[in-house]
Order: sequence, then structure tokens, then C-alpha cells
Amino acid sequence: MRNSAHPREASEIELAQYIDHSLLSPMASVEQVDQWCDEADRYKFAAVCVSPCHVQRAVERLHNRKPLVCTVIGFPSGATTRRNKLYEAQEALELGAQELDLVMNIGWLKSGLMDALYEEVAEICEFSAAPVKVILEMSLLSDEEKRIAAELCMDAGAAYLKTSTGWNGGPQ
Amino acid sequence: MRNSAHPREASEIELAQYIDHSLLSPMASVEQVDQWCDEADRYKFAAVCVSPCHVQRAVERLHNRKPLVCTVIGFPSGATTRRNKLYEAQEALELGAQELDLVMNIGWLKSGLMDALYEEVAEICEFSAAPVKVILEMSLLSDEEKRIAAELCMDAGAAYLKTSTGWNGGPQ
Repeated sequence: MRNSAHPREASEIELAQYIDHSLLSPMASVEQVDQWCDEADRYKFAAVCVSPCHVQRAVERLHNRKPLVCTVIGFPSGATTRRNKLYEAQEALELGAQELDLVMNIGWLKSGLMDALYEEVAEICEFSAAPVKVILEMSLLSDEEKRIAAELCMDAGAAYLKTSTGWNGGPQ
Repeated sequence: MRNSAHPREASEIELAQYIDHSLLSPMASVEQVDQWCDEADRYKFAAVCVSPCHVQRAVERLHNRKPLVCTVIGFPSGATTRRNKLYEAQEALELGAQELDLVMNIGWLKSGLMDALYEEVAEICEFSAAPVKVILEMSLLSDEEKRIAAELCMDAGAAYLKTSTGWNGGPQ
């Protein structure tokens, strides 16, 4: 069966490279972090994504293995301060995180504070050598707000836009 | 009707002193922060509780008025780092917050890392001149975990224990 199995395996590995294996439950234990890291390695996922308190452990667990370690900034509310988001990003990078998922400040968008929204994202994107993915939280935005937020975050240097934290309903 | 109205009014004001007027939606606008502050003053609530990014505005709005300004630390996941929680608490106090609602690290509890759980809470309680209320997030804990967490957080210096962030189901 090897001939027929090979193409399927190859395509599974190709697909796996587009998947981040995420463990962002507040209940996640350190044993689960280890398990997620091992699974990411076994299935050739691009990255594991863990909460900031688990970054150090995931980095150690994946030492010399291929999956990247991603973490989240201002997650899941986006309503921490600009200074705190920058500090959180700096610490995550120091601990070895290789990608950052940043929740934008939805309240600034709702308040029309576009400069504040932009500057916060731009500051972290400029500082971070690692790619910054900005989570817009689609389920909380109008169509017009989605358009504005997407353009603004791309201009500010986001490497990717993400639709949802998973904490406020799915993408809409 | 004044005579019959008076006792009711007095008891309403008494009750209001036990209420924190909370606005922790990620969508909260700065106009809503102002509204919550004004309502807290009008109805004599003990405090407004706003996200960290709104502390400065709430402090300015309530300048020389009675309600306290409370904010949240590590909210709502509890899964930020110990260093980041301390930094977030320090910044909130610098900005004028007078009470802190700290989400404990539920993952440390689930992992049996009691020292890490204790030290994080104790460090912030020691540092903070303001009362620290620790949110246990009952809906995610077993009865045994509730008991352990409650004792540990009281030992660590919590001024109050709170049952729920509101993000993971109500108290159970």
C-alpha cells in the first residue's frame, strides 16, 4: 500500500505546516503544555501557541525541535494598557517566543481613537523581531469596523490578521 | 410621601456601598467609562471597576468624587506571567487605581504548583498598598481545588476572594 499512502502523507505534512497547535485554556496544566509541544513536533505543525505563563516551558520542551513557540499579548480582552502590552511582548521574546498574537484594543476602535489603536500595534510590530499577528475579534465588530481595523493593523505592520480569540464567539 | 420614601432611600444607599459598578467588556468605549463613573457617583456605589486601559480616564473622571477606581490584573485568563502581573499591578497603582482584582493562575493550581501560585499572589499583595481581591474562577475548579485555592490565597494576603471573572460561566 506504500505507493498509494505516500501522496496522502505528503499532503498531510504540507497541510500541517499551516496549523498552529493552540493551548490557551486558563486551565492548561504544564503536563498539557508538554503534550501539545510533543504533538506539534510529531505532526509537524508550524507552531504551538501557549499562554505567556507557559512560554518558558514550551521553549525548553521544543529546544532543537522544529515547531515554533507562539504566545498571546493582551489576551483575550485586548483591554490592557499599551505599556503593559509592550512589556508583555518584550518578556515573551526574552523567554524565547518566536511569534506573537496581539489582541488589538477593541475599545479604542469603538471610541474612534484610531491613533491610539494604531500606535499600540505599530509600537509592538516595530519592536518585535518576531512576526506579530493581530487578532481583530470579528464577532464584536461591524462590517465597517472590520474594514477599518484590518487596514489600520496592516498599515501598522501586522504580519497576519486573525479573526478571533475564541473567547467571544467565532468569526462572523 | 417623604416619610415613607426616606427609609427606603437610606437602605438603598447602604446597599450601594457594597456594589462595584463593573465595566469589563472588551468593547467598552471611553464614553461608557465616563457614564459608569458618573453612575457610580450618583448611586453611591463603592467603586467602578474598569479594564487597565481605562484606569487613567476613570481616575480623572472621579477626581474628588467618592467612588474608588478598581481594575483587573491578569484578566480574565490568569495565565499571564508572574512578572507581567506585577508590572500590570504597579502600573495600575501608578495611574491611580485604588483596588486590584487579580485572577489567580488556574493552570498552576491544576498542575499542583502551589508554591508558584502562592508566590505570585503574595508578591502582589505585599507590593500593593491597595486591597487585592483574588478571583478564583469557581466554574473551572473542583470542590477540593476551591478549598485549597481559597486557603492559599487568604494566606497569601488577599483582602477578598471573588468567585468569577464572568468569562467562564458563573460561580458554581
